[in-house]
Amino acid sequence: MDDMKKRALEYHTRGGQPGKLEVIASKPCATADDLTLAYSPGVAHPVLEIAANPKDAYKYTGKGNLVGVITNGTAILGLGDKGALASKPVMEGKGVLFKRFADIDVFDIELDCKDPKKIIEAVKMMQPTFGGINLEDIGAPECFEIEQTLIKECDIPIFHDDQHGTAIIATAGMMNAAEITGKKMGELKVVVNGAGAAGISCSRMFLAAGVKRENLLLLDSKGVLYKGRTERVTPEKVEFLADTEKRSLAEAVDGADVFIGLSVADCLTADMLKTMANDPVIFAMANPNPEIRPELALATRDDIIIGTGRSDYPNQVNNVLGFPFIFRGAMDVKSKMISEGMKMAAAKALAALAKEPVPQEVRDAYGRDFVFGKEYVVPKPFDPRVIEWEAVAVAKAACDEGLAAEPITDWEAYKASLRARMEKHWK
Amino acid sequence: MDDMKKRALEYHTRGGQPGKLEVIASKPCATADDLTLAYSPGVAHPVLEIAANPKDAYKYTGKGNLVGVITNGTAILGLGDKGALASKPVMEGKGVLFKRFADIDVFDIELDCKDPKKIIEAVKMMQPTFGGINLEDIGAPECFEIEQTLIKECDIPIFHDDQHGTAIIATAGMMNAAEITGKKMGELKVVVNGAGAAGISCSRMFLAAGVKRENLLLLDSKGVLYKGRTERVTPEKVEFLADTEKRSLAEAVDGADVFIGLSVADCLTADMLKTMANDPVIFAMANPNPEIRPELALATRDDIIIGTGRSDYPNQVNNVLGFPFIFRGAMDVKSKMISEGMKMAAAKALAALAKEPVPQEVRDAYGRDFVFGKEYVVPKPFDPRVIEWEAVAVAKAACDEGLAAEPITDWEAYKASLRARMEKHWK
Repeated sequence: MDDMKKRALEYHTRGGQPGKLEVIASKPCATADDLTLAYSPGVAHPVLEIAANPKDAYKYTGKGNLVGVITNGTAILGLGDKGALASKPVMEGKGVLFKRFADIDVFDIELDCKDPKKIIEAVKMMQPTFGGINLEDIGAPECFEIEQTLIKECDIPIFHDDQHGTAIIATAGMMNAAEITGKKMGELKVVVNGAGAAGISCSRMFLAAGVKRENLLLLDSKGVLYKGRTERVTPEKVEFLADTEKRSLAEAVDGADVFIGLSVADCLTADMLKTMANDPVIFAMANPNPEIRPELALATRDDIIIGTGRSDYPNQVNNVLGFPFIFRGAMDVKSKMISEGMKMAAAKALAALAKEPVPQEVRDAYGRDFVFGKEYVVPKPFDPRVIEWEAVAVAKAACDEGLAAEPITDWEAYKASLRARMEKHWK
Repeated sequence: MDDMKKRALEYHTRGGQPGKLEVIASKPCATADDLTLAYSPGVAHPVLEIAANPKDAYKYTGKGNLVGVITNGTAILGLGDKGALASKPVMEGKGVLFKRFADIDVFDIELDCKDPKKIIEAVKMMQPTFGGINLEDIGAPECFEIEQTLIKECDIPIFHDDQHGTAIIATAGMMNAAEITGKKMGELKVVVNGAGAAGISCSRMFLAAGVKRENLLLLDSKGVLYKGRTERVTPEKVEFLADTEKRSLAEAVDGADVFIGLSVADCLTADMLKTMANDPVIFAMANPNPEIRPELALATRDDIIIGTGRSDYPNQVNNVLGFPFIFRGAMDVKSKMISEGMKMAAAKALAALAKEPVPQEVRDAYGRDFVFGKEYVVPKPFDPRVIEWEAVAVAKAACDEGLAAEPITDWEAYKASLRARMEKHWK
């Protein structure tokens, strides 16, 4: 058994307490008197208040700080369809991250079902329970229908992290990489290799960030998605069918400024890399092994900016920089959804934060300094400033777009409340 | 605003943290290294273990200690149908009680749905998430179909507390009351007033405890359920249609040994009480106001044993004496269900414990002593011995019936583990 396996399994069973989440009472419950308030007869009062005024659910229950992390286990990490039960450690892990980085409570819900219609119905039924719903590790193309339908039919934020999480962080990184290399978004030639949930969402977000449609090539396992191709062209891919003669990945990356990998290990060769434009940006995010090893990429040419999904290389494009703070901001203003504008606000906040000098806590956490540049285009997850930058930006966007049921007006007070909320997690 | 309302609403908002439950990480998550174990890449290992061996979900996730408290809010406490959202304080409260008394984690799930078929489907889908499911505050008759179908189709314990919780505690109390008054179960004439979820379940359990079918009368709001009656006779009531000339509550209680009230305030009059047999047992459990006020009952005759659902009178028939410990025992042996035998084992354990001298902790908690007799026929909720008596009895019954996937053999070790588990809650 390798060391990581041994340590990971030990971690999940530590202290004779299987798993990673625990539900505790947040109010006193030592005495019989406490329980007359927590349960019968006292509990009838918040029930009646909520029945009379549904918004009071946010006042008297945990709904407003509670995210349902919901999956059917059909696309677990890079492991594929392992079923709902086997996905539970990942969903609990997501709960750990939500709590650790944004003090959000999570119920992980694993659904034994592959029918998108039934999943939609079940999640809609659960809506009173939650303040927001993070869909997770649901395979494409079902994930598109599930998310889009739920966004339309629910009045709480619905967010499929596998689609948008990566897109938001990659967009932040790409905006900064463009700035560092002196290129304009509208001039970047971008290749997105992988047309699953994340690839589609990245492509859409790059367009929203200023990349021109004619400069973007999307590829799936059959190669370039070009106008006239019919094989495996799902509805989500149609808008990206390109007017191009290029067919293979090698042809696609020739002359490109940006390679976005959401595909498989080692598919970007050194020879391909050599054909890319000057100062190319490579986000090779296949897990656990990237589309090109950073060592090989850097040995091939020295004008590149490379990021991966891994924590052991520079420029980790890590979803944890997104979802905790996006839900924090969205739920704190009771936004009815997470809009494209809110996602872009998150990306821009991350991009802006990376340009700031890094505080001592971050240097301590990582044992080194970080300076905006080729090896530091996005902030580090263990940067306690992220919540203030990103959650605030997301909440502001929700307010600006009129999506917030309870808009914030005093932003300094909100920032202070975030600092106070997070203190216990950072100490 | 009355004092209880004020205190209850304040309690539910205390500390600026709405609601009563919080989800925390049970494992370290301070550093980046911790998170490589909790999430990617380490989490892939428990995923693969569970995919290969589904039972390992109990080893590497919280499933085995996690109960879903699931409702649709159609029968909230004594308040009726207030909807799923307004039921959330009650469900969170149930979570508080599960944790406080049996260290069980709860996700409360409020389903916006009244169609029993759809509720069944949603709960079945959620099965991988939970180690057990406590259905709560779902109105009759839908609750019967929902519970029975789920019991048949799920392989984790399913338990509708509104039906069986009261039945188990009332049965324990009735067995002890019979003993105190020198009557035999097989001779008791029993009147159950109220044919909702709890009334039906009480009636069934009394029969299982030795009451003869011909000695039991069940009444609903239309009076006695007698052979030949057709009005409002739902399928669950059919088995209780009695061969009797009695039609009204007054006629039913005339000569009866036991009155079980699961109905409405003040329906049992002093005049009716006078017609009951010697040493009658009255469990007047309507909430918040019982079928007869204990003061009135005791002023009417002095040979009675009276219990209510309230904590401010003797003999509180309180569900909290049941569900936490029943799930604890059932889940600790991974029983695939909560059988009739396990419920009866719970009732007998409670009845037996009430005959034991009360320890100092209980005297301290209540500021008085309790001695087995007319004013103490069931244990007190704040008695730390309950878990050892009841969870052990339930687990043993599951093992004896061959329902336990992981039977316990060393019962002393199990008891010690329960004591260790509960220490933090009692200190």
